Amino acid sequence: MTTFPHFDIPALARDLEPALQQRINSKTKPLGALGRLESLALQVGLIQRSLQPELRQPAILVFAGDHGIAQSGVSPFPQEVTFQMVQNFLAGGAAINVFARQHGIALRVVDAGVNADFAAHGGLIHAKVGKGTANFLQQPAMTAEQCQQAVCKGAELAQAEIAGGSNVLGFGEMGIANTSSSAALMSVLCEVPVAECAGRGTGLDDGGLQRKIAILEQAVQLHQVASGEPIRALATFGGFEIAMMVGALLGAAERRALLLIDGFIATTALLVASRIQPEILDYCIFTHRSGEAGHARLLQVLNASPLLDIGMRLGEGTGCAVAWPLVQSAVAFLNEMASFESAGVSGRSAA
Amino acid sequence: MTTFPHFDIPALARDLEPALQQRINSKTKPLGALGRLESLALQVGLIQRSLQPELRQPAILVFAGDHGIAQSGVSPFPQEVTFQMVQNFLAGGAAINVFARQHGIALRVVDAGVNADFAAHGGLIHAKVGKGTANFLQQPAMTAEQCQQAVCKGAELAQAEIAGGSNVLGFGEMGIANTSSSAALMSVLCEVPVAECAGRGTGLDDGGLQRKIAILEQAVQLHQVASGEPIRALATFGGFEIAMMVGALLGAAERRALLLIDGFIATTALLVASRIQPEILDYCIFTHRSGEAGHARLLQVLNASPLLDIGMRLGEGTGCAVAWPLVQSAVAFLNEMASFESAGVSGRSAA
Repeated sequence: MTTFPHFDIPALARDLEPALQQRINSKTKPLGALGRLESLALQVGLIQRSLQPELRQPAILVFAGDHGIAQSGVSPFPQEVTFQMVQNFLAGGAAINVFARQHGIALRVVDAGVNADFAAHGGLIHAKVGKGTANFLQQPAMTAEQCQQAVCKGAELAQAEIAGGSNVLGFGEMGIANTSSSAALMSVLCEVPVAECAGRGTGLDDGGLQRKIAILEQAVQLHQVASGEPIRALATFGGFEIAMMVGALLGAAERRALLLIDGFIATTALLVASRIQPEILDYCIFTHRSGEAGHARLLQVLNASPLLDIGMRLGEGTGCAVAWPLVQSAVAFLNEMASFESAGVSGRSAA
Repeated sequence: MTTFPHFDIPALARDLEPALQQRINSKTKPLGALGRLESLALQVGLIQRSLQPELRQPAILVFAGDHGIAQSGVSPFPQEVTFQMVQNFLAGGAAINVFARQHGIALRVVDAGVNADFAAHGGLIHAKVGKGTANFLQQPAMTAEQCQQAVCKGAELAQAEIAGGSNVLGFGEMGIANTSSSAALMSVLCEVPVAECAGRGTGLDDGGLQRKIAILEQAVQLHQVASGEPIRALATFGGFEIAMMVGALLGAAERRALLLIDGFIATTALLVASRIQPEILDYCIFTHRSGEAGHARLLQVLNASPLLDIGMRLGEGTGCAVAWPLVQSAVAFLNEMASFESAGVSGRSAA
């Protein structure tokens, strides 16, 4: 018997909202003319309980893990690509490296459960729970103990970043076949048919997609997980990188950090986290709508309206990195723009 | 009789497209997984005729001008706000200042025709064509000579930036009542009813919007400009800042610069420019879909798909500045990401 850790995520104190809104409205622009940047500024101010919020030391944690279900042919890429892409992250050549460098975002690469041994490398956080999950077409992807271990480790890593001075974290992942894990999780927890959750992932053709859907339907049928069992669902469908991300999300929200949510897999991790602790949603910025099929529907379920909709579907936290300057713009206008009064600009005429 | 200047905008040389696409496809990511960033990278490569494009010295030109039509009560803000906001730009307190600073974009503030005298100020480009346009409810906003003067000056300013080393320009504007100019231009040139072109601008209420539509319908009726007369339409409905932007757009495209298109008013200036020289559209990146009512339809007419859709409707070039990092991301992934080969990452399995 394991005890799942408890996370104490504070509800946002809404008492600061009128003063923040007044500050936003005083800026030299028509009311509401900065659109979503205004609601972002309000959200960040509420999270930080400040009229002058500050974004400090942004970091993206990228969790990598392998999936037993990859053996069932749900991805056009072989499993070793997970390992190879982690090496690519460490060498600085992947998309997330490029975008993190562009914006001065710290990148942490975490081995949550890759099916290979890494040589010692200063840039890699070794947190392997196992060498890939079990194939959930036959048995649960992980044990309850492994699930708890992954969640606790994720929380520990996120809270270490925050203890080091960060107050905004993004979350990325790498794991061949992890859109299959995510689709199964979404289907079970949202009670949506698998066919509306599963997409082409890294590029399945029509036949491959149909096979993937059939396999996932079989797995969902096998395990009979109820929508009210988020932790059991997580252990059943995996993966280690998703479970570690669930913990990182919960741990970061407990410390009142701003959470940047990436695409389909990261949003599925958030779905799990939000079923454990719904208050987490107040801390989230949905950075983009992925091109992966299930994501639009999942965002609807979460009542989430993403910042970008540019057809990205890469994972790795790339949506977080690419959308990050918009979050900075929101905080910058709030702190730096002149007010009508300070700039001597006339207001609206009486109507 | 005046002679409108001729701009010689080269068609894109498409011969580099296969090599650019191959370079994009070789990167360590599933095919197409960076979505719009991939088509952006392709476009910038084609414009610069290079497999390794470079973005140099981005600058935003903000043109300010006043409008005679403001006397007819089409805006909730008084005309002096144009002058006051230019002062705000010069003092660094407006939204465009904040976002340009955030991204290291040079900002050029141009008096194209504000109805006030500015003291000498190192940061202001004096290019006043007149102290505001005439009220187009009674007569054309400007003479053909003024229109030509504004267009030529705009081209000169843009080409001076490019001669100084820039290869990417954004375009912004400030001018109380200029959504009215733009709505009239759009209605005439696109043959769309005024009611589908005119929006709330800086915040008209329902009654104000109905009055604005009635005034614009009357003006459009009065002048009888045909959709095939872009230059006459520009002179008729103004304003000086729009005409100068038309020239800046055409002049910059002639020099093969990348053009960042902002919201409703900037897109209307581009509409005029594209009716003069359609090749200009190949050089444009549409940075956002404005919350101003006519913009979505205008983007459709231009077959344009904007990068952002976050409800901004401020003008000043703010959309260009806020979307700019996405353009940088596109060029960065093209130049910096590893290829499958260089990173030793396995490709797709044979299907």
